[in-house]
Amino acid sequence: MARFIRKRKEEIGLAPDDLLFRGVPKINKVQLRVIDFDAINLIENPVAKVKDVLSYQHKNSVTWFNVDGLHNTSIMEELAKGFSLDQLILADVLNTQARPKVEEHDNCIFICIKMLQHNPVSDLITVENLSLIMTKSVLISFQEIDGDVFEPVRDRIRKQKRRIRNGGTDYLAFALLDIVIDNYIYIIGVLGQKIESLEDRLLSDPNQAVVEKINAYKRELNFLRKNIKPAKEMILALNKLDSDLIDGVGVALHLKELADNINHANELTDSYREILSDQLNIYHTTISSKLNDIMKFLTVFSVIFIPLTFIAGIYGTNFEYVPELKYRYSYFIMWFVMLVVAVGMLVYFKRKKWF
Amino acid sequence: MARFIRKRKEEIGLAPDDLLFRGVPKINKVQLRVIDFDAINLIENPVAKVKDVLSYQHKNSVTWFNVDGLHNTSIMEELAKGFSLDQLILADVLNTQARPKVEEHDNCIFICIKMLQHNPVSDLITVENLSLIMTKSVLISFQEIDGDVFEPVRDRIRKQKRRIRNGGTDYLAFALLDIVIDNYIYIIGVLGQKIESLEDRLLSDPNQAVVEKINAYKRELNFLRKNIKPAKEMILALNKLDSDLIDGVGVALHLKELADNINHANELTDSYREILSDQLNIYHTTISSKLNDIMKFLTVFSVIFIPLTFIAGIYGTNFEYVPELKYRYSYFIMWFVMLVVAVGMLVYFKRKKWF
Amino acid sequence: MARFIRKRKEEIGLAPDDLLFRGVPKINKVQLRVIDFDAINLIENPVAKVKDVLSYQHKNSVTWFNVDGLHNTSIMEELAKGFSLDQLILADVLNTQARPKVEEHDNCIFICIKMLQHNPVSDLITVENLSLIMTKSVLISFQEIDGDVFEPVRDRIRKQKRRIRNGGTDYLAFALLDIVIDNYIYIIGVLGQKIESLEDRLLSDPNQAVVEKINAYKRELNFLRKNIKPAKEMILALNKLDSDLIDGVGVALHLKELADNINHANELTDSYREILSDQLNIYHTTISSKLNDIMKFLTVFSVIFIPLTFIAGIYGTNFEYVPELKYRYSYFIMWFVMLVVAVGMLVYFKRKKWF
Amino acid sequence: MARFIRKRKEEIGLAPDDLLFRGVPKINKVQLRVIDFDAINLIENPVAKVKDVLSYQHKNSVTWFNVDGLHNTSIMEELAKGFSLDQLILADVLNTQARPKVEEHDNCIFICIKMLQHNPVSDLITVENLSLIMTKSVLISFQEIDGDVFEPVRDRIRKQKRRIRNGGTDYLAFALLDIVIDNYIYIIGVLGQKIESLEDRLLSDPNQAVVEKINAYKRELNFLRKNIKPAKEMILALNKLDSDLIDGVGVALHLKELADNINHANELTDSYREILSDQLNIYHTTISSKLNDIMKFLTVFSVIFIPLTFIAGIYGTNFEYVPELKYRYSYFIMWFVMLVVAVGMLVYFKRKKWF
Amino acid sequence: MARFIRKRKEEIGLAPDDLLFRGVPKINKVQLRVIDFDAINLIENPVAKVKDVLSYQHKNSVTWFNVDGLHNTSIMEELAKGFSLDQLILADVLNTQARPKVEEHDNCIFICIKMLQHNPVSDLITVENLSLIMTKSVLISFQEIDGDVFEPVRDRIRKQKRRIRNGGTDYLAFALLDIVIDNYIYIIGVLGQKIESLEDRLLSDPNQAVVEKINAYKRELNFLRKNIKPAKEMILALNKLDSDLIDGVGVALHLKELADNINHANELTDSYREILSDQLNIYHTTISSKLNDIMKFLTVFSVIFIPLTFIAGIYGTNFEYVPELKYRYSYFIMWFVMLVVAVGMLVYFKRKKWF
Repeated sequence: MARFIRKRKEEIGLAPDDLLFRGVPKINKVQLRVIDFDAINLIENPVAKVKDVLSYQHKNSVTWFNVDGLHNTSIMEELAKGFSLDQLILADVLNTQARPKVEEHDNCIFICIKMLQHNPVSDLITVENLSLIMTKSVLISFQEIDGDVFEPVRDRIRKQKRRIRNGGTDYLAFALLDIVIDNYIYIIGVLGQKIESLEDRLLSDPNQAVVEKINAYKRELNFLRKNIKPAKEMILALNKLDSDLIDGVGVALHLKELADNINHANELTDSYREILSDQLNIYHTTISSKLNDIMKFLTVFSVIFIPLTFIAGIYGTNFEYVPELKYRYSYFIMWFVMLVVAVGMLVYFKRKKWF
Repeated sequence: MARFIRKRKEEIGLAPDDLLFRGVPKINKVQLRVIDFDAINLIENPVAKVKDVLSYQHKNSVTWFNVDGLHNTSIMEELAKGFSLDQLILADVLNTQARPKVEEHDNCIFICIKMLQHNPVSDLITVENLSLIMTKSVLISFQEIDGDVFEPVRDRIRKQKRRIRNGGTDYLAFALLDIVIDNYIYIIGVLGQKIESLEDRLLSDPNQAVVEKINAYKRELNFLRKNIKPAKEMILALNKLDSDLIDGVGVALHLKELADNINHANELTDSYREILSDQLNIYHTTISSKLNDIMKFLTVFSVIFIPLTFIAGIYGTNFEYVPELKYRYSYFIMWFVMLVVAVGMLVYFKRKKWF
Repeated sequence: MARFIRKRKEEIGLAPDDLLFRGVPKINKVQLRVIDFDAINLIENPVAKVKDVLSYQHKNSVTWFNVDGLHNTSIMEELAKGFSLDQLILADVLNTQARPKVEEHDNCIFICIKMLQHNPVSDLITVENLSLIMTKSVLISFQEIDGDVFEPVRDRIRKQKRRIRNGGTDYLAFALLDIVIDNYIYIIGVLGQKIESLEDRLLSDPNQAVVEKINAYKRELNFLRKNIKPAKEMILALNKLDSDLIDGVGVALHLKELADNINHANELTDSYREILSDQLNIYHTTISSKLNDIMKFLTVFSVIFIPLTFIAGIYGTNFEYVPELKYRYSYFIMWFVMLVVAVGMLVYFKRKKWF
Repeated sequence: MARFIRKRKEEIGLAPDDLLFRGVPKINKVQLRVIDFDAINLIENPVAKVKDVLSYQHKNSVTWFNVDGLHNTSIMEELAKGFSLDQLILADVLNTQARPKVEEHDNCIFICIKMLQHNPVSDLITVENLSLIMTKSVLISFQEIDGDVFEPVRDRIRKQKRRIRNGGTDYLAFALLDIVIDNYIYIIGVLGQKIESLEDRLLSDPNQAVVEKINAYKRELNFLRKNIKPAKEMILALNKLDSDLIDGVGVALHLKELADNINHANELTDSYREILSDQLNIYHTTISSKLNDIMKFLTVFSVIFIPLTFIAGIYGTNFEYVPELKYRYSYFIMWFVMLVVAVGMLVYFKRKKWF
Repeated sequence: MARFIRKRKEEIGLAPDDLLFRGVPKINKVQLRVIDFDAINLIENPVAKVKDVLSYQHKNSVTWFNVDGLHNTSIMEELAKGFSLDQLILADVLNTQARPKVEEHDNCIFICIKMLQHNPVSDLITVENLSLIMTKSVLISFQEIDGDVFEPVRDRIRKQKRRIRNGGTDYLAFALLDIVIDNYIYIIGVLGQKIESLEDRLLSDPNQAVVEKINAYKRELNFLRKNIKPAKEMILALNKLDSDLIDGVGVALHLKELADNINHANELTDSYREILSDQLNIYHTTISSKLNDIMKFLTVFSVIFIPLTFIAGIYGTNFEYVPELKYRYSYFIMWFVMLVVAVGMLVYFKRKKWF
C-alpha cells in the first residue's frame, strides 16, 4: 500500500470551494450526534438530520455536534446553510489530505488535525482527519469513522465536572485536542516500548531480522512524525490567535498545556529516532567486529595448516632419489618439524593478539 | 546531457535590460491566444498579432493573454510598448534560467515559476518557465512550449463557475499557480510510487541494479526539489505582498491554500529523500550481512576440510618407515579420526552460533 | 527498564486541574520542613502539618517551606487553600513528567526543573522533579524523595551570609536553581571522565566490549541531555520574565550566571557527544585497518604456498612415464624451483608494499 | 601549496590603520587607468600619476579610476589625501585577506569582493581581491593584477548604452559586481561539467583514480564556496544599505538581480557538493557490491573443489589395506562421486542465489 | 589529562560573590605592572602593591594596570575597594572556567576571553583566561601567567603611535582583544599547515598512523574551536553594547574589524574540520579499495591453482586400475590440460576486468 496519499490526476485544478470529498469513504452511513449542556442541564442523543440540530445554535448552552463520516456532501451543504458557514470551510473538511491548521473566520474558528488511534487487538495505528468548527455556542466536529477517543470528555461532561460544564465551546474544543495529543504520546510510547525491547536482541543475536525490524519501526516512527509535526505549528498558531471566541480564563492555561504536550510528543519521536539510528550503528559495529573475528579464525587456521600440508606434499612426490625417504626416523622428524611450525605460528598469532 | 543550465561565456556582463532570449527555443512559432470574460460574457480565440490584444486592456472584463514561445524578441518589444511595461520585466521573461520570484512594479505584478509536466506516455518530466504579468484587467502568461496544464481553469471559465468569472486577474493568476503546484504534488507522487515499489526488491534481491535505480531516483528527486523549493519562497513573498492588484475576498484564502500546497510538496520531497536514504542504508546493511554469511560459510567449510586433507596428506608420504601404514585397520582408523575432527568442528561452530 | 516515562492509558483525557499524582511514589511518608529567616533571625525545624506553616506567610521574613514526597494529594489541597494558589499549579507539581518550565501567575511564580543527583557509592544517577512556588514571602519547594543537594544553601543561610540573608524569595530560589545546575555540570564531568578514559583502550585494544561501553555512555549522555536541554529554555524564559517578584539587585547578575552555567552544561554534553562519535569512528577505522592487515597476511601466505603445493602435487602423480621422476637431482631441483617461486612472490609483495 | 592564506607572525598586533600591504605582490608596476563619461562625452586613457586624476572628481561626469597592483603604498597615501578618504579604508584595500564586505563612510561606500577568473588555456582559476571605493562622482577600483573581466562594461560605456551612460557611480559599481558574480556562475559551471562527466566512469569502471578525481573536485568546489559564500552576505548588506550614494531608479532592480545571481551561485555550489557526495556513495556501494561478488566467486569455487581434493587425497594414502584401491571400478566410482558432490554444491548455491 | 575542566564537588553551591580562586595557580607570585600615558607623557614601571596604582585613576591620562597571577585573593579585595568595583566582578575574574563574556556595570565594563599562545619551541598551545576591567581612565587586565602576547601594543604605545596614544581605555582594550584574536588565527594556521601536509601521505601510504594523526589534529581543532567559538558571541555582544565608556571615533571601526577577524577565525576552524573529515573519507575509500584489490588477487590466484591441484590429486591416487596412468603421454597431456584451464581462467578474469 502506498505510504503517502497521492494526488489523483482528476483532482488537479479543482476550484478551492468545490464541495468534493477528497478521500476514501471509511464508513457506510454518516452518523450525527449531539450533546448540549450548560452548568445545570445536559441533553445527549443521536439525531437523524442536520435540521434537528439547527435550533440548538440559538440557545445559551454549549452544543457539541459530532459528524461521523464525510462522504455525504449534501449534509455538508445543509450545514453550510444552516450554520451560515463559508462553503470554503466545508470544502476543507472534505479534504482528508489537508495539513493540520487553524483558520480564523468571521463567525467561527476552523481547526483540523490528524487523529491517531491505536487498536490494542490488532496492534495497528489508524489515522483519520478531525475537523473542528467552533462558533460562539456550537462546536461541530467531523470524523472519518465512527468510534473515537473522546469518551473521557463525554464522561467529564456527564459527571458534571465544574470546569467543562462552565466552559464555552473553546474549553470543549481544547479538551478534545488535548485528548488527541495525549493519544499521540501514548502511541509513541507503545512503539517506543517495542523499540527499546530490540536492544537486548541486538547485542546477543544480531541478524538481518533485527535490522528489518529496526527499519520497520523507523518507517512507523516517520509515519507518526509526519502526522504529529505539523500539529505543533497548528497549536502554536492557536496560541497566537487573538479571537473573541477564545477568552475563557482557564483556556489560556489549557492552551499552554497543549503546547507543552505537543512539544513533548515531538521530542519523544526525536528521541526514538536517535535510538533507532544508534541501534543501526550498534548493528553495523557488531557485524564488522564479527567479520573480523571470522576472518581471523580462518586466517589462523589456514596459515597453520598450509605449510604442514605443503611438507606432507613434498614427501608424497614420487622422485626416485629423495634421500629423506630412506632414513628410518624421517617420518617422526617430519611430525616434529610440523609440530614446531604449528607451535611457532600459534606463538606468532598470540603475540599479534589475534586470539 | 548537462543537468544544470550553465552560463555561456557570451552572457557574462550583459546589461540587465537587454531583450535577449537566454535559453533554447523549444517551438518553431510563437502562438498567441486570448480569453476575455466577465460574469456574463466570454470571448476565446487565438490572435495573430500583439496589437489585436491591446484594445482589451481598456475593457472592464478580465483578459487572459497567453504567449507560447519566447524566442521572438520583437513581440516582447511590442508588448512592452503596448501595455507600457518596463523593458526590464520582459528581459526577465526571456531569461529561462531565472529563479521563481515575484516582483511588484508600478502598474503590474511580475511572477515567474517553474512549470513541471509529466508525460504519461514517455514517463518523462518536462520543465519550462512560466511568467505571469498581472495588471488590473489583463493577465499575460508566457510559456516556452505550447501545450500546458491549464485546461481545467479554462473549463471552469467556460462552465461559468461563479467565483472565477466574478474574480479579477488576481483570482485567475492564483488559479493558474494552483494548478502548477498541484502538478508538483502529482509528479512527486508518480516518482514516489516508483520509489516505494523498490522496497520489496530491496529485501528479496538486493543487487547493484537496485542501487543504481535508487541513485537515479535520487537524482530525479533532487531535480524536482531544485525546481520546487524556490517556489516556496516565491509563494511566501506573494503572501506578504501588499498591493492594490491583490484584494479580492476569496483571494486571501486562495493564497493560503497555495502556501499549504507548496509546503505539502516540499514535505513530500523531503519524505521521499529520507525514504531513499533509508533504502540505501537497508541495502548496505543487507550487503554486509550477506558478506558475513558468505565468509562464515567459506570459513566453516574450509576449516573442516583443511585438517582432514592434511591427515590424508600425511599418509600419502612415501617414507619407507611409517608404522601406521602397515597396520591392518589404519585406513579405517583414519576415517574414524577424520569423522571425529569434522564433528568436533561442527559442534564448535554451532556453539559459536556461526550457522 | 523503560528509558522514557510513558503515558498510561488511564491518564489520557484527564482534566488539567485534576489533583492526581502522575508518577511513582518514591518515599513512604511526605515530609515537611520549614526554614524562616531574615537578616537577623533564623528558625529551622520540621513541621507535621501544612497548617503549621500558614502563619509564616504573613511575616516579613523569608520562609522556605520544603515538601519531600508528592503522593499525598490532600496535602496539596491544603496548600492550595492555605496559600490561595490556583489548583492548576498544584496539578502541575503532581505531574512528574512535566517539562522544565516557568509560569507567572497572579500571586506567584511557578518553576519546575529536573534535579539530577549522582550517588558516589552506586555510581548511579537519580532524577526527580523539583517544583518551586515563589510568592512574595514564601518559597515552597517540592521534591519526590527526601535527601537533596541543597545543604550548601542551608549552610549559607545558617552561617548568616550577608547576601542570602538579606535577599528575598527570588534570591533563595535562584540559589537553589544554581545548585541544581552546578550538579548538572558535576555529573556530566563524572561521565566525561569515564568517556575520556576509554580513549587509550580504544587504540591499544579495540574490541566489541569497548564499543558496548561507548554505546552505554552515549545512552547515558542522551539521558542527561534530555533532562538538561529543556532547562535551558526555562532559564532563558526566567531571564525574560518581568515580574514584581523578581527585583532584587543581585538577582539580575545571579540570573545571568544561571544562564551561563546552563549554557556551559549544554556545551559540555555536546562536546562529549562529539567525542563519543569520534571514538566510534576511530574504532571503525581501526577495525577496517585490522581486517586489511589480516587479509593481506592470509593472501601473502596462501599465494606463496599455493604454487609450491601444486608443484609437489604434480610429482605426487602416479603416471608411469614422468621423465623428471627418474632424474637423479630432480628432487633438489624441485626444492630450488620452489625457493625461486617463493622468493619471487615475496619480492613482488614487497614491491606492492603489502608488508 | 597552502590552501588558505595564513597570518604571519609579524602581522599580529598591527594597528588597523597601518598602510601596509598584507599579501604577495603579483605584478611589477602599479598601473592606473581612467575612464570619464557622461551621456555625451567619453574620455578613456591611462594615467601616470594619482594627481592627474584628482581634477576629475569635481566634474559632473562619472569617473572610473582603476588601479592594478596594490604594493605601492605611497600611491595609497596620495589617494587618501587627494580624495580625502579615511586612511582606514585604504588599509583595508591593502589587506588582500579581507572578507567581502561593504562599509558606509561619510563621503563614500567601500566594497570589497573576491574576483575569480578562469584561464581557458591552463584550466586554472585565479583569485584576486577587488576593492571599490564609490563617491558621488568617482569610482575607484583596485585589483591585484592587470587584466580583468570588465571589458564588457567598458564596451557598454563605449557603445554609449543608454542606461550605463546615464547612470551614476552606483550603476557602474553594480555593473562591475554583476560581472564578478556572473563569472562565479560561469566558473562553477565549468567545474560542474567536469563533475557530471565523472558519472559514467563511476558506473563502468570505478577505481581509485575516480575517487581521487572526486576528492580533487570537492576541494576545488570548497575553494570556490569559501570565496563565493561571504559575497552573499555582502550583497545582502548592500541591499539593506540606505545611502544617498545609491539612489538611481534602475539601481534597485539591479541590486535585486545581484542578489538573485549570488543566490543562484550558492545554490549551484550546494548542488554540486551534493552530487559529489552522491558520487562517493555510489562508489562505495559499487565497491562493496564488487567485494561481495568476488567473495561469492571465491567461496563457490573453493567450496566445490575442497571436498573433491579431499577425496583424491584419501586415495592417495599409502596404507597397505585400503579395500577400495583394489576394486576394478573404484577410480570411475570416485569420479562419479566427485561429480555428484560438485553438482550438489552447484544446486545448493543456485538455490541460495549466489550466482 | 582531562580535556575539560571539571567542576569539583566542593565548588557546588558557592555564593556567586565568594572571592575564591577557582583554578590551578600557574605562577608563584602575583606580578603587577602599570603603564600610564596620554598623547605626550608615558610612565611604565612595575609596582609592588595595589595601593601604588590607585592614585592613577584620578589622572586624565589612560592607565593600563596589568595583573599576572590570580591566586592572591587579598589583592582582589584591595582592587575591589580601591577602584570601587562590585565584588561579583572580581569573583568572575577568579573563575578561570568562565565563558568569554562582556558585562556592563555601573562604572565599568567587564570583558573576559580565552587567550591562546603557541610556544614555537615545544609546539604546544597554552590557554589562559584574560579578564579586562575597563573604567573611564583605567584598564585593568588579569592574566593567569606572566609573559603575554601584548608586546606589540606596548611597542605602539612607546613609539607614540598617534591613534593609541590619543585613544581612551576603550581603544586600548580593543587593541588587546585584537591581538588575542590575531593569535587565534595564527594558531589555527599553524595547525592547518600540519593538517594540509597530511594529504600527500594519505594517498601515497595510508596507514593507521596517519589516521591517528588525523584524530589527534581533530581533537586539537575541537579544543581550539571550543575556546574560540564563544568569543564570537562575546564580540557580537560588545558590538551591540551601548555604553558611555565606548565612544571613540576609531573605536566603531576597530570593533567591526574584531568581528571580521573572529568570524574569519571561526570559518578557518570550520574549513579545517571539513578538510579533516574529507581526509578520513579518503582514507576509508583507499582502505576499502585496497581490500578489494587484495581479495581479487587472492581469488584469482586461488581459483587458478585450485583445479590444477585437484587434477594432480586425482592422479596421485593409488587405485590399481586407473587407465590414464599407463598411457605413455598422459603426463604431458595433464600438463596441457592444466595449461588450458589456467589460460581459460585468466581470460575469464580479464574479461571480468579483475586485473
